[in-house]
Amino acid sequence: MDIQKLLSRQAIETESKIVLLVMDGLGGLPVGPQLKTELEMGKHPNLDKLAREGALGLADPVARGITPGSGPGHLGLFGYDPVQYLIGRGALEALGIDFPLKPGDIAIRINFCTVDDSGLITDRRAGRIATEVNAKICAQLKSKIKISGAEYFLEPVKEHRAVLVFRGKGLGDKIADSDPQVVGKAALAMVGEDEASKKTVKLVEDFLAQAQPLLKDEKPANMMLFRGFACFSKYPQFNEIYKLKACAIAQYPMYRGLARLVGMEVVEAGAELEDLFAALKNNWAKYNFFFVHVKKTDSAGEDGDWARKVQVIEAVDKQIPKVTKLKPEVLIVTGDHSTPSKLKAHSWHPVPVLLWSENCRPDLAQEFGERACASGGLGRFKMKYLMGLAMADALKLEKFGA
Amino acid sequence: MDIQKLLSRQAIETESKIVLLVMDGLGGLPVGPQLKTELEMGKHPNLDKLAREGALGLADPVARGITPGSGPGHLGLFGYDPVQYLIGRGALEALGIDFPLKPGDIAIRINFCTVDDSGLITDRRAGRIATEVNAKICAQLKSKIKISGAEYFLEPVKEHRAVLVFRGKGLGDKIADSDPQVVGKAALAMVGEDEASKKTVKLVEDFLAQAQPLLKDEKPANMMLFRGFACFSKYPQFNEIYKLKACAIAQYPMYRGLARLVGMEVVEAGAELEDLFAALKNNWAKYNFFFVHVKKTDSAGEDGDWARKVQVIEAVDKQIPKVTKLKPEVLIVTGDHSTPSKLKAHSWHPVPVLLWSENCRPDLAQEFGERACASGGLGRFKMKYLMGLAMADALKLEKFGA
Repeated sequence: MDIQKLLSRQAIETESKIVLLVMDGLGGLPVGPQLKTELEMGKHPNLDKLAREGALGLADPVARGITPGSGPGHLGLFGYDPVQYLIGRGALEALGIDFPLKPGDIAIRINFCTVDDSGLITDRRAGRIATEVNAKICAQLKSKIKISGAEYFLEPVKEHRAVLVFRGKGLGDKIADSDPQVVGKAALAMVGEDEASKKTVKLVEDFLAQAQPLLKDEKPANMMLFRGFACFSKYPQFNEIYKLKACAIAQYPMYRGLARLVGMEVVEAGAELEDLFAALKNNWAKYNFFFVHVKKTDSAGEDGDWARKVQVIEAVDKQIPKVTKLKPEVLIVTGDHSTPSKLKAHSWHPVPVLLWSENCRPDLAQEFGERACASGGLGRFKMKYLMGLAMADALKLEKFGA
Repeated sequence: MDIQKLLSRQAIETESKIVLLVMDGLGGLPVGPQLKTELEMGKHPNLDKLAREGALGLADPVARGITPGSGPGHLGLFGYDPVQYLIGRGALEALGIDFPLKPGDIAIRINFCTVDDSGLITDRRAGRIATEVNAKICAQLKSKIKISGAEYFLEPVKEHRAVLVFRGKGLGDKIADSDPQVVGKAALAMVGEDEASKKTVKLVEDFLAQAQPLLKDEKPANMMLFRGFACFSKYPQFNEIYKLKACAIAQYPMYRGLARLVGMEVVEAGAELEDLFAALKNNWAKYNFFFVHVKKTDSAGEDGDWARKVQVIEAVDKQIPKVTKLKPEVLIVTGDHSTPSKLKAHSWHPVPVLLWSENCRPDLAQEFGERACASGGLGRFKMKYLMGLAMADALKLEKFGA
């Protein structure tokens, strides 16, 4: 039986509270003069105290060797098998702008691009037009384009990117990108692999046929490419599975979207790090599961800026007493994947996990870091098992069998 | 999704190079006055340096507690689930003499044996006749026996063992051995469990009916037993799955056969240890994955000769600089299974793994040995996951999901 099904079978409703504090891209690789990871380098006495009292381990978000995107990374944290519940790119883009997708919706990423007089692509990103220009173009297209057979939504994202959503009956997503991935070629014709997908292709072609004359004189965004066709399906709901009242505290739309995808309530938080923890306190009475998402560890890693990643980790450490003061039954500090500054990208390296609870079995770890986690008492496990540990330590799981 | 499918989905072609150096039967158990394993006892400064810079772990070729044969051991190393892709004994014997099996071939092990006048077996191995005698008998049988309905091949192996291969349409392998496993009984009648296997039985019976008069006066090999019926099926090809150009450098036919089975190219190498590494250098430009197989660690283990096993490990260590000088992006040193001298046999103990790469996450290990591996950063894993780690560290895998 799948672990999530098993947990669902054993879950009971209790008052105990779980905090899942996610530092995005937390895991790292040795860098700098000390040849330590960002987490090992940082001074984080509060996390180290939790590490001494709690248990550490290393988790693989998807599988050994596999580098996860943000979608699979978070699904693993929430206890969903990320391979079984793969989110299409279009759907993730829509979630990323807080778009309320409904089951059956087809979400498509749009790249505005530049073509020459003969229709050959000269710039796949239309010179990365300003987001405001993008918004203006989208507004104009929406005011003019009428589609029959389905409802459509067009929303600007950032720079040259937008999202197109079709809502109708029997639409498919088995359609390859129209983006040829190189300049000097024309956009590829879209081909639906089955009847449902052919129906979607007709809608997109209708949309494009109306858009082209409107874009014709736009410079440089005089054409669009369609990518990441994704049919959105409803996910099994987090609160029902685990019998929890869960809320998400996240400052970036994609993570709010991911939380909403599994049915968490998303609560308001300001833009600063301490705002996350103020929101946690403000919502403490209303929920018993809190997903708190810190983005900036990942951004620093992506920028290859290990010193800044260390600073973010140290800044989060200073907030930890605000969490422990609330007396959660379970406090987990981890990441959704590794983003080593050394690689300036997400990576396949397992993610450090710190689990603190009155009911956990402490190990020999004296501090929170990758090498300490490698010999921690939780061992090495797939991230989808984390929810079970959290639920168990919160005494929210019944005995299995007599 | 199976890990190999997942890797295949994410694999990209790059120039980076991976060396998989396999010391056959590497893992051991404490022996000798120091009560250390052969690997722990050996002086191997080059491997220890790699261990300090890289990451260690312990891998189970098949599953905890399961002792693998050479086939499953190597399939695990190559990333194939050894239970799903079990190689029949007949097929392995054929691979072991470099016989070019084709899909659908039925390979059967033959034991020449001795029977008395009433047909009861008096020696299941015909006194382990000399290989030359075996070859002479096989040549004579081949010159006389004519089979209709299928092509057949008969090849001597070692001492009393030979391989019989039938190539024809619709042949099955669901046939129990004719070897009763004890003396004093007659050979068992062969029964095909399905139509295809019944067809094979007819061919074997025809073969045996013609062979018996020819063998009648051979002393002591006056009869033959049939074992390990195995239909050969084409394996998913290594190079296609991983988008690699792989070559195998191995001195023993079975390992060349196993490499060929998954589609690696087998390159020439002389008989000495250093010849393996000369072949590695000579073929460096042409491939980006190198399976290098050292047999003698296993032979020494099988002989219960721990001192010789230590010597082989130390001799391999001296060759390591020849590998690192070539600057592979990933260098793995491991075994296909454990062969502790103490047990004089393959064993179920997990196999020490050393993975070195610029992109791996180093652990606290200071040397290469079983106990160091037990607390290494790679943790404990099934061997079939090793290819994913190698591919990841060589930057040959795309991100999974957005």
